Amino acid sequence: VNSYLDSIKTTIFSVMSALAVEHSAVNLGQGFPDDEGPDAMKEKAAAALYDHNNQYPPYAGVAELKQAVARHSERYSGIPVDAATETLVTVGASEALTCAFLGLVNRGDEVILFDPQYDLYAPAATFAGAVIRTVQLDPNDWSVPHAAMEAAFSERTKLVLINSPHNPTGKVFSDEDLAFIAGLCVKHNTYAVCDEVYEHLVFEGSHHRSLRTFPGMADRAVRVGSAGKTFSFTAWKIGWVTGPARLVTAVAKAHQFVTFTVASSLQRAVAYGLDHEVAFYTGLGKMLEGKRAYLERRLKEIGFQVLPAQGTYFLIADFSTETDTDFSIRLTKEAGVTTIPVSAFYISADPPRTLVRFCFCKTDDKLRQACDALESFFGKRR
Amino acid sequence: VNSYLDSIKTTIFSVMSALAVEHSAVNLGQGFPDDEGPDAMKEKAAAALYDHNNQYPPYAGVAELKQAVARHSERYSGIPVDAATETLVTVGASEALTCAFLGLVNRGDEVILFDPQYDLYAPAATFAGAVIRTVQLDPNDWSVPHAAMEAAFSERTKLVLINSPHNPTGKVFSDEDLAFIAGLCVKHNTYAVCDEVYEHLVFEGSHHRSLRTFPGMADRAVRVGSAGKTFSFTAWKIGWVTGPARLVTAVAKAHQFVTFTVASSLQRAVAYGLDHEVAFYTGLGKMLEGKRAYLERRLKEIGFQVLPAQGTYFLIADFSTETDTDFSIRLTKEAGVTTIPVSAFYISADPPRTLVRFCFCKTDDKLRQACDALESFFGKRR
Ligand SMILES: CSCCC(=O)C(=O)O
Ligand SMILES: CSCCC(=O)C(=O)O
Repeated sequence: VNSYLDSIKTTIFSVMSALAVEHSAVNLGQGFPDDEGPDAMKEKAAAALYDHNNQYPPYAGVAELKQAVARHSERYSGIPVDAATETLVTVGASEALTCAFLGLVNRGDEVILFDPQYDLYAPAATFAGAVIRTVQLDPNDWSVPHAAMEAAFSERTKLVLINSPHNPTGKVFSDEDLAFIAGLCVKHNTYAVCDEVYEHLVFEGSHHRSLRTFPGMADRAVRVGSAGKTFSFTAWKIGWVTGPARLVTAVAKAHQFVTFTVASSLQRAVAYGLDHEVAFYTGLGKMLEGKRAYLERRLKEIGFQVLPAQGTYFLIADFSTETDTDFSIRLTKEAGVTTIPVSAFYISADPPRTLVRFCFCKTDDKLRQACDALESFFGKRR
Repeated sequence: VNSYLDSIKTTIFSVMSALAVEHSAVNLGQGFPDDEGPDAMKEKAAAALYDHNNQYPPYAGVAELKQAVARHSERYSGIPVDAATETLVTVGASEALTCAFLGLVNRGDEVILFDPQYDLYAPAATFAGAVIRTVQLDPNDWSVPHAAMEAAFSERTKLVLINSPHNPTGKVFSDEDLAFIAGLCVKHNTYAVCDEVYEHLVFEGSHHRSLRTFPGMADRAVRVGSAGKTFSFTAWKIGWVTGPARLVTAVAKAHQFVTFTVASSLQRAVAYGLDHEVAFYTGLGKMLEGKRAYLERRLKEIGFQVLPAQGTYFLIADFSTETDTDFSIRLTKEAGVTTIPVSAFYISADPPRTLVRFCFCKTDDKLRQACDALESFFGKRR
């Protein structure tokens, strides 16, 4: 069997979700919301099954979703997008990202990833034979370290992966961050893959801007979006890519041999949602903010330090006397609350070791239950 | 962009389907049935959307589908299958096969593929960094050439891909074929990936047997199945892998970073179908036989030679004065009937050049229409 894959473990999200089930813990680990997306989208998906339309859709996506994705991407990036040539529908953002690496990179090319990072990037880059250069965001404030970033670029750099709003930190990259990164991409003539699945999950006072909108970037950047995150339907596995035709075509070339095409009933429901359920996804940030505020207050009372964030549905807390992996496991088993150790998001050898990630897109009841459980656990321990 | 992918074209199925639409041709190219699967499965899929169950299912598949896949695989192979450890649900057979290469092969390992072959195998093997050795089935009768097969094995052979019933030829590998191949796999200690998506599409007088059932193979072979082919729902993109835990785990390791998981509403409908719609898929072969007989008779009358086959919904015809790619394009444009040139299924430099593939899982009306169109086209030409 493949020795690289053999050496890496089952993804931390599955491990912690299974542990949560085993110990009947409140699961604030894996990132999925309790409140589902719009009923009208379920109706569209169900109706589509009865349309005598259950055979292969076009490999790049059904026309109506490609058009809706183009309109959506134009609306939020300001960049015109041609539905036919500049969009691709994928099996969730996961397949979009894997195909982006396979389609854009040649074996031996270098790619730049930030640490902490979503746990799919490094394996997907490795499938493509990429050499990974890692830049650690400053763990004090998640700022982009300029010198390290400049040093990471070389003649062999093919692409930079930017995830903003950022998982697991909740950082929304600032315009200054992005301008700096764009400058380096242009200077070194690289691509950028922009994982923007949390684009609508931004808190008041912050704004998300795509790296693709910066000077010189429109022709070198692809944006990745997700219906799972945009509509709280993570089980639907619908994602998309927008970008210049040449790059989208390259990603599609990989896609046609990885999955070939995507479940059409769900594609059609997402097409409807992007156009008609705008209030749902533009309201998500506001809705999440209250949940974050509640969780933050309670965690602080218990004795955690809570790191600042501007978006996503993740919050990182520091309980500085503890080692995160052991701590996460013990919190699940003994306190009945499941988190994700932040060190699992690092591929560098020296991650911060006392940070755990909480996912707060959960019912108010569940958040209260989790906080109460933590409070009584730490109360008892003191 | 990736230069290998850049050098290969859009898959022939998409090209010919698009050409069919453009010329309003009867599409007997891409393999998808006109008659859809059971309504009860659509109902299950629709109902599942309303179960407040629209977040990530377990990455290896929902429990009820894993159990149904295990039962189904046991029933048709006779080999016990443990649902928890020996099954994996994937985004169609495509993702199963891609993940099989990524999960089982190390860069530089050799893999053996037959020619003609499904057009995904070589790109997927290439993603995994495999070195491809090709063995041509004898184009006279699609028999397995023993000497060439023996010569293809080496110390570096990691796996053999066997597709039976076979696309595009309709060949169902005989027990003698399979015993011979199994012997080589055991002798050279290799894996086998068995693409058996057409396992239920076998004509009377023939039988399908899995390579995995041969002595010494149970621990070295994985079987790939497809709800698209089994239930005539090719748009659903549900596939599965069964096999020994160690190999299924390796494939799952790739899957968790390629798509992570599979649309759960459709998984649950397929779970229902595997247990309760047995009559549908065990009746497919019989139903197809009549269609094949009709198409064969008409094509012979027109002047084609029709090659023998024992299964699938494909038929290969030879119109020996013509070159298949030009011929396929001309048939679409001028006769209004779309086929697939068989040379597109070859990666060897010297494919047979006069064979076209017809897909006959179409309504009787459509088959008649296509045959009438061909008849008047060739009548006019004579
Ligand atoms: C693929 S499961 C992980 C979901 C997620 O995005 C997260 O928890 O970070
Ligand atoms: C993925 S489209 C091709 C469908 C098929 O199996 C075929 O036509 O051979």
